[in-house]
Amino acid sequence: MENEKNDYSKEPERKLEQFIINCKEPFNAEPTPSQLISNFITPTENFYVRNHAPVPDIDVSTYILKVDGLVGKALSLTMRDIKERFPKVTITAHLQCAGNRRTMMSEYKKVKGVGWGIASLSNATWSGCRLRDVLVEAKAFGKDLGALHACFWGLDIGCVEDNGKPYGSSITMEKAMELDGDVLLAYEMNGETLTRDHGFPLRVIAPGIIGARSVKWLDKITVSSNESESFFQQRDYKIFHNGVDWHNVSQYWDKTPSLQELSVQSAICLPAPGSSLYLPFQIMGYATSGGGRKIERVDISLDGGVTWDYSDLMNEDKGPVNKYWSWAFFRYNLTADKFQFAPGMIEKDIQIVCRAWDNSSNTQPKDVKDIWNLRGVMNNSWHQ
Amino acid sequence: MENEKNDYSKEPERKLEQFIINCKEPFNAEPTPSQLISNFITPTENFYVRNHAPVPDIDVSTYILKVDGLVGKALSLTMRDIKERFPKVTITAHLQCAGNRRTMMSEYKKVKGVGWGIASLSNATWSGCRLRDVLVEAKAFGKDLGALHACFWGLDIGCVEDNGKPYGSSITMEKAMELDGDVLLAYEMNGETLTRDHGFPLRVIAPGIIGARSVKWLDKITVSSNESESFFQQRDYKIFHNGVDWHNVSQYWDKTPSLQELSVQSAICLPAPGSSLYLPFQIMGYATSGGGRKIERVDISLDGGVTWDYSDLMNEDKGPVNKYWSWAFFRYNLTADKFQFAPGMIEKDIQIVCRAWDNSSNTQPKDVKDIWNLRGVMNNSWHQ
Ligand SMILES: [Mo]
Ligand SMILES: [Mo]
Repeated sequence: MENEKNDYSKEPERKLEQFIINCKEPFNAEPTPSQLISNFITPTENFYVRNHAPVPDIDVSTYILKVDGLVGKALSLTMRDIKERFPKVTITAHLQCAGNRRTMMSEYKKVKGVGWGIASLSNATWSGCRLRDVLVEAKAFGKDLGALHACFWGLDIGCVEDNGKPYGSSITMEKAMELDGDVLLAYEMNGETLTRDHGFPLRVIAPGIIGARSVKWLDKITVSSNESESFFQQRDYKIFHNGVDWHNVSQYWDKTPSLQELSVQSAICLPAPGSSLYLPFQIMGYATSGGGRKIERVDISLDGGVTWDYSDLMNEDKGPVNKYWSWAFFRYNLTADKFQFAPGMIEKDIQIVCRAWDNSSNTQPKDVKDIWNLRGVMNNSWHQ
Repeated sequence: MENEKNDYSKEPERKLEQFIINCKEPFNAEPTPSQLISNFITPTENFYVRNHAPVPDIDVSTYILKVDGLVGKALSLTMRDIKERFPKVTITAHLQCAGNRRTMMSEYKKVKGVGWGIASLSNATWSGCRLRDVLVEAKAFGKDLGALHACFWGLDIGCVEDNGKPYGSSITMEKAMELDGDVLLAYEMNGETLTRDHGFPLRVIAPGIIGARSVKWLDKITVSSNESESFFQQRDYKIFHNGVDWHNVSQYWDKTPSLQELSVQSAICLPAPGSSLYLPFQIMGYATSGGGRKIERVDISLDGGVTWDYSDLMNEDKGPVNKYWSWAFFRYNLTADKFQFAPGMIEKDIQIVCRAWDNSSNTQPKDVKDIWNLRGVMNNSWHQ
């Protein structure tokens, strides 16, 4: 049984040269920063992969999605049902692991979890049916949505952190049912059938919230008055305060909200850290926010965050309001005249820093130490 | 003419002992911090007042609201029309001046603007018609909302900053028309006819965004492909980067987005700064966010922000999702055993700090210096 759960002999083929591999089994990999910002829509073969167990090998002809719990009518749906009974919807959305930039948090003070650089996020188009439409068919409406949760279980048995159980997670029914929430049950990515690494045959896409809620290889949706009972909802993916350690964490599991919406984030992808710099050159990177919020501005500092200037924002996502699910790229042309912002500074003293602001007027915190947390999640400190 | 515009002889009566007065003419005043947190719904007589000119003295029997610009049908509406033709809606929402906590920003480095302490915000119930319903009657639908703005002008001629023009401001048509946006044209506050200081007979209530957009004594709504041409939209209420000063600001007016949604904020109201402290005592304050985001957590530090603990949150606003327009209060009982979080600390060394997190996982920046801006807006740095 233990062997079967941890059988990595049926993993999909991967173009490994495309990735920085953070963990081989389960497979966790991110593109290189320069590759990351080469395309507004990330090619599927470069899209970061975050697995918690061996990739399940699913026969679509026998696949059944179950919907149960606090619904008027429990459902069992084949892939044909899902494609035929519900309208097909396509959205463009980025997914981002809550562990993005964890390695930098660990450098300040050790945290537990897969080490991720700055590229555990990617942007793609997703097609499928609306979760909302399935929940309406299951008669999950007319309740007090504010008190309910849509709980997802995957078919990926063997999650080491959760004693071999499959991966599970939940979102609020308010997000699930919201017209503008755009939560999909996706069967296509970038116009092709979903690949095994990305959840074939069916996965959740919950845009604007941490990637951990977009459960892959979806087995079952349970409408419940509690959040998912999974380890990954109850104990993981929480920003504990910095007094919480491995000795006292159990006191804080219930007191600490589970993460949903992503905070405002940005990172410099080019030039790579430590590269030789010759004027003029270009600084490039990405900026993202959660909840569909729009990136309005990315500031660049050349002196470690003392003085700032605005970068040029390349925001291909045109909304509408509250539905800016994609990332934005930014660019800053560093020419000699830009040094007016830091008189007397010479090239070797350049300390490039970026920080984004979104349309909620929120911005990134300066120091990782101020947001350090035991699980190393949501590191959105200034990037340099 | 100049005299007439600046005639303060017809100001409403005010219970001045209820306020800290930051400017007498135009009248700008905030309640004391302890008064502020005495009521979840702020009594009207304690609600902060932010005026830019003398309070207009409006005869409701001749009052007309005009709606024009990019609409299918321009409207002229009496107060009777407004009350009879459109359903009456009531919401509870806080308003907060973008200049809240400006004085603290000025203490770091001087900024221009009315000095506000920590109490230029308040929470009330508002009744009126939906702006959306009026705009639908004006046939302002069916356009590309993303490119349009609802521009408001007040009847308060004599704004000193704008050469005696009335106050003006705009919001996006997406916010104006959004079903869940809850933008009202309000004629009642806390169940009574709007008072003169708060915009009698009709004002905008745009919840979740800076108070500056909730134009009082509403004269006209113009649907436009540009933001309001008012000084208060084009030049004021922007977070310039910290290299912008009074010599170069004109280069940055167009490059800097105008503020809309409020960022995450909190402040300690009790104990008052400098008061003598004897254990046990209670720390109390407020936390707010914009865009209807929910306050999920307020952290308290007793050592100036090195270590943190969670406070108790008293969140009377029950949503629904994306519509948490009210503030939340927090409380922290400081008993001797709490000192486990800062071993060896003695009472006189207590440095109380608070910071809030909302359901977007955003939190407040640590240092005011990192968000310092010429106009002194959106100071949401950690409060101590
Ligand atoms: Mo993740
Ligand atoms: Mo304001």
